[in-house]
Amino acid sequence: MSERSVSFSAARLAQAFQRIAPYVLNTPLLRNPRVDEMCDASVWFKCENLQHIGAFKARGAFNAALQLSSQDLQKGLATHSSGNHAQALSLAAKTLEVPAHIVMPKNSPEIKVRGVRALGARIVFCEPTLAARESELEKIIAETGATFIPPYNHPHIIEGQGTAAMEVFNAGSNFDALLTPLGGGGLLSGTALAARFFSPHTRVFGTEPANADDGLRSFHSGKLEQNDPHKNTIADGLRTHLGPLTFHCIREHVSGIFTVSEEEIMGAMELVWTQLKIIVEPSAAVPVAALLKYKEQFFGQNVVIVLSGGNVDLQSVQFLKK
Amino acid sequence: MSERSVSFSAARLAQAFQRIAPYVLNTPLLRNPRVDEMCDASVWFKCENLQHIGAFKARGAFNAALQLSSQDLQKGLATHSSGNHAQALSLAAKTLEVPAHIVMPKNSPEIKVRGVRALGARIVFCEPTLAARESELEKIIAETGATFIPPYNHPHIIEGQGTAAMEVFNAGSNFDALLTPLGGGGLLSGTALAARFFSPHTRVFGTEPANADDGLRSFHSGKLEQNDPHKNTIADGLRTHLGPLTFHCIREHVSGIFTVSEEEIMGAMELVWTQLKIIVEPSAAVPVAALLKYKEQFFGQNVVIVLSGGNVDLQSVQFLKK
Repeated sequence: MSERSVSFSAARLAQAFQRIAPYVLNTPLLRNPRVDEMCDASVWFKCENLQHIGAFKARGAFNAALQLSSQDLQKGLATHSSGNHAQALSLAAKTLEVPAHIVMPKNSPEIKVRGVRALGARIVFCEPTLAARESELEKIIAETGATFIPPYNHPHIIEGQGTAAMEVFNAGSNFDALLTPLGGGGLLSGTALAARFFSPHTRVFGTEPANADDGLRSFHSGKLEQNDPHKNTIADGLRTHLGPLTFHCIREHVSGIFTVSEEEIMGAMELVWTQLKIIVEPSAAVPVAALLKYKEQFFGQNVVIVLSGGNVDLQSVQFLKK
Repeated sequence: MSERSVSFSAARLAQAFQRIAPYVLNTPLLRNPRVDEMCDASVWFKCENLQHIGAFKARGAFNAALQLSSQDLQKGLATHSSGNHAQALSLAAKTLEVPAHIVMPKNSPEIKVRGVRALGARIVFCEPTLAARESELEKIIAETGATFIPPYNHPHIIEGQGTAAMEVFNAGSNFDALLTPLGGGGLLSGTALAARFFSPHTRVFGTEPANADDGLRSFHSGKLEQNDPHKNTIADGLRTHLGPLTFHCIREHVSGIFTVSEEEIMGAMELVWTQLKIIVEPSAAVPVAALLKYKEQFFGQNVVIVLSGGNVDLQSVQFLKK
């Protein structure tokens, strides 16, 4: 999907909001006095971890699926994903009563495989390389006629993900800044567009692991950069790279990008669990870590954090084993 | 506090609701499709674990403190508690800018001691017996003139705890049944009164660990029974006994009491963590376990579970170590 063919608008976002409203939760916006004290700011948490399938990805998946022709929809939905997009698409397919075909790399987190399976999707496992994922997916599409719904680099996905921020703005407070995790860039792009159209004074920031900082480097160099393949991050949802379309949105509408260390991610994750009493996955803790690290930039402001998801193998969480 | 001197009314509950509204959260009411499937019912979770201090107890503490004379209030609040009531009273005292004196048994969960300390209360540790707690508390009251705010057996506490159910009924669905944990009985009594006055067709049930089933036995025998001191339960918030006033409310207004095993409590706790992505303490999992165990009694109904709290030492949770 080229960035030149897309024309985002307030009307299109408003349509996405109406389209998916029957299928997604308007998730709670939580406060926490202790976090406010720690950050010297007023902080709201948009709890997309409490969304159906435990992540914001349900928004984009429904928005894309619901725009297919009835004929195409009946042939089913297909994607490759190791994570939350797979579950989101499976939920959309189950809800709309059409088949879902999900190509998953063999090393996908067990909780996400179980989630996809529980939603009745057909899973095809493949080697954990992009080439293997794409060739397996092509085969399935050729066989079934299913439509490929990509995880982030598509206008319908971006517009769907933007509806979380629209719910925040509808809640009515005067928000100065909004921080989201940054992986492929669907959530950040949609959020930045939502702010541009519905709350133009709100600055939007992306946050990512220092070990997967393609977003930051692309933002500054002006071209699509790659992650260092020798580095890994616990924030498994943020290992993906920007696509051309999300890159374009982010360069145009995002105020800045922060990176945080693995230790800072784990610390922020523990803080959210213990203070807010909700379960977030490492990716969702990244913007919390960034706010704590760069709090002097948000002193006294009204700040929203999008907690993107809560799908984490509980037995894998290190701070629970101290 | 004798049961004969108290006259509960819709007006008194409505006043409690107004009185504490500025100080407590109207907590989210969450749904989960997987739980609905498992229970063959429509289930709403009232998330008091997301309340300030991580438990419903803030409601009763504020309702009691705010009814003291200004002179009494200035002398401070005092209680003995190993748990959430201690934190609730500390928060009320901090918010109202008066001293709090908390007698805590030496073996209180570390997370609850830290919570009380973080709220600026004075902690006095004592031996883990009721006699030691009471004599220590008497000393403090003699010294300071602080007012004893009991954890449950007091009309202001009961009325305060009832406001959680009032928020549920205000949310407007047609609820057939409402299940709460049962320890000292403050939450269950307040909930049953709220239902009687504001949603009389809603049946209210108490739920407790089989290992601390004084509530069930008292309910059936018609007199205050004691827990077996040789049995213990992981649901530390539910080890307390009914008081005369809560016993009276429960006998009068509650439809039934269910008990569950320790294994059932742990299973329900894991289910809530993994499906709802929120952290609940063992006590809060007890009504979930009861609904799963006795689901044939709620087939097809609209059922509310009050998730009472989320204060649990994360490192103590066994299913995280599998």
